[in-house]
Amino acid sequence: MAVYTDVGDDALAAFLAEYDIGDLVAFRGIAEGVENSNFSLRTTTGDFILTLYEKRVERRDLPWFLGLMRHLAAAGVTCPLPLAGRDGEALRSLCGRPAAITSFLPGVWPRRVRVEHCRPLGETLARLHVAGLGYAPRRENALGPDAWLPLLALSRDRAGDVQDGLGPELDAALAAILPAWPAATGPDALPVGQIHADLFPDNVFFLGRELSGVIDFYFACTDLLAYDIGVCLNAWCFEPGWEFNVTKARALLAGYASVRPLLDAERAALPVLAQGAALRFLLTRLFDWLHQPPGALVTPKDPLDTLRRLRFHLAAKDAHAYGL
Amino acid sequence: MAVYTDVGDDALAAFLAEYDIGDLVAFRGIAEGVENSNFSLRTTTGDFILTLYEKRVERRDLPWFLGLMRHLAAAGVTCPLPLAGRDGEALRSLCGRPAAITSFLPGVWPRRVRVEHCRPLGETLARLHVAGLGYAPRRENALGPDAWLPLLALSRDRAGDVQDGLGPELDAALAAILPAWPAATGPDALPVGQIHADLFPDNVFFLGRELSGVIDFYFACTDLLAYDIGVCLNAWCFEPGWEFNVTKARALLAGYASVRPLLDAERAALPVLAQGAALRFLLTRLFDWLHQPPGALVTPKDPLDTLRRLRFHLAAKDAHAYGL
Repeated sequence: MAVYTDVGDDALAAFLAEYDIGDLVAFRGIAEGVENSNFSLRTTTGDFILTLYEKRVERRDLPWFLGLMRHLAAAGVTCPLPLAGRDGEALRSLCGRPAAITSFLPGVWPRRVRVEHCRPLGETLARLHVAGLGYAPRRENALGPDAWLPLLALSRDRAGDVQDGLGPELDAALAAILPAWPAATGPDALPVGQIHADLFPDNVFFLGRELSGVIDFYFACTDLLAYDIGVCLNAWCFEPGWEFNVTKARALLAGYASVRPLLDAERAALPVLAQGAALRFLLTRLFDWLHQPPGALVTPKDPLDTLRRLRFHLAAKDAHAYGL
Repeated sequence: MAVYTDVGDDALAAFLAEYDIGDLVAFRGIAEGVENSNFSLRTTTGDFILTLYEKRVERRDLPWFLGLMRHLAAAGVTCPLPLAGRDGEALRSLCGRPAAITSFLPGVWPRRVRVEHCRPLGETLARLHVAGLGYAPRRENALGPDAWLPLLALSRDRAGDVQDGLGPELDAALAAILPAWPAATGPDALPVGQIHADLFPDNVFFLGRELSGVIDFYFACTDLLAYDIGVCLNAWCFEPGWEFNVTKARALLAGYASVRPLLDAERAALPVLAQGAALRFLLTRLFDWLHQPPGALVTPKDPLDTLRRLRFHLAAKDAHAYGL
C-alpha cells in the first residue's frame, strides 16, 4: 500500500489540462502497489488511474512498458491503456516524477485463489504471450538468472539472521539451478517473448469467474515465455500452509495450453523454471527484509514463505509434479 | 494512508449480500484516513465507501456517529450517508470489525488552502452546527479540556526529547488556558451542539470552488460550537511558514456568520478556543510521536508544527487577531 508522493491542487489541474478527458470530479490515493504512487482519478468523462513512477522504476524503461501495455490492449488483452495527452504523449511529468494516466479496469483481485481462477489465468497468460510476439522492442530481465548471484551477495552475510542455514541453502539452490537453466538463444532455446514476470494474484482482477484485467507491467521484460508459468505456479498454486495444489496447477496449465500448447522442452523445464522463479522472489524479498528503511510505508514480504515454495520445486523430478 | 485490515473475497461477497446495492464491480483500498481501513467500492448501482473501524474508534460510539451522519445528510449537509442493509441496520460486522457502507462523495480535498476555500468552509461549518441542533443524542468530547492534563502526563517526561523546554512550555499553556476555558453549562455557557472537531483540509472536498462534502466524523462530539471554529482557525488559516493569514480567517468567520451569527461571548472566546484547539492536537501528536509502534504504517505528524500555531493564539489579545 503506498502513496509516496502527494499531488498538489495546482499541479494536478495543470497536468489534467494537458489531456482531453474532462474536468476533475474525484481524486483519491490507492493503498495498493508497492513500487509507485497510484491515484484513482474521476473526471466528467470517466474513471482513470494516475501513476507517479517512483525511484524503483527506471525512467528509461517507461516508454517500453507503456508501449507494451498499448500493444497488448490493442491486441485484446485487458490491461491498463495509457492515455495520450493533447500532444500525443502518454509519458509526462508531475511533481518531478514521470507520470501517466491509464484506463480504469473493473474487477477485484482474489484474496484467496480458487481453482476456478486458475484456468482463466492460464488462458490470459498465454494470450498475453501470443499478443506480445507482435511487440518488437526488447527489455532484458534485470532480475533474471544473471542477477541472482549478485543479488544474493547483497544479503548473503546476514541471511542466517533470517533463518539458520539459509545462506548455505541458497548457495546450494543457486548451484543446482543455474547450470540447469534453459537457453534463451541457440538451437535448444526455449521460446522467448514479452513476459509479465510478476503475475501474482494482486495483479489480476476478476469479475465473478471472469478474468477482467491484468495490471502492473513494471517488471515485464523479454525472456523465456515458460518462465512466466513458473512465476504463476509459485504465485497461484500453493495453499496457505504451503501445500502445492496440483489441481490448481493442472487448471492453470490446461488454460495456458488451450491458447498456446507448450513444447516438450518447455514442459520438461517447468521444474527448473519454477525453482528459478521462487529463487528470484526469495532473493528480492530477502534483500528488502534485511534492508528496511526506518519509517518504511510498506511491510516487506516474508522471504521464508518463498523458501518453502522453492523447496517444493527443488524436489520436483519433472512436470508430473505439476499435474502434467 | 492506511488499510489495516484486508477483506477476503468470500467475506466481502457475504457482506454485500446483506445489502440491496447490486453486484461487485471494483474494490480498492484507499490510501487516506489514519484511523480506519477504507475501501472504494463500486457495484452495478454506483460508488460507495466501505469502512472497517479499527481499534482507535470505540465500537459503542459508532451508532452515534452513523446517526449523526444520517441526520446531517437528511438536513442537507453533504456528508457520507450510511447505507442500511436489507434488515435496516447500517452498522454491521466484517472481518471481526465493525463496518459500514456509506455513499461516495465527489470532490478533492485541497492540498493547498486558498482564500476561496475559507468562506464556503465557514458556511458549511455553521450549517453543520445548525443542522446538528436537531440531533439530540450527546457524545462527550473525549479530547476536551478535561483530557488535556492526563494526556500531557503520558508524554510529559519525554517532551524535552522533541524540543528543549517543551514540557514547561506546555505546563504554562495549560495553566493559562484551563482557567479561561468558557463554560458549557450554566448562565454564562456558550452555545453547545454537535461539532465535527477534526475539520482539517483532508476532511473537506471541493469541486472547483464549491465545497462538495465533509467526511470523517469519528471525532465528532457534543461541545462548544465555537470550539469547532477554533479548530478551523488552526487547520485552515496558517501559511506553510506558520504565518497566520488573517484574510483566510476573516473569510472563514464571515462565511460562518452568514449562516449563524456569533454571539459576543463566542467572539470574545475565540483566542482561548483556538489555543485549546491547538493544544488538543499538539498533545495527541506529541503522544503519537513519542509512542510510534515499530513498523507503523502511518508517519506521525510533527507536534512542533502545532506548537507554532499555539504560540500565535497565546499571543492573540482578542478576536481582532482573527480579523473581527
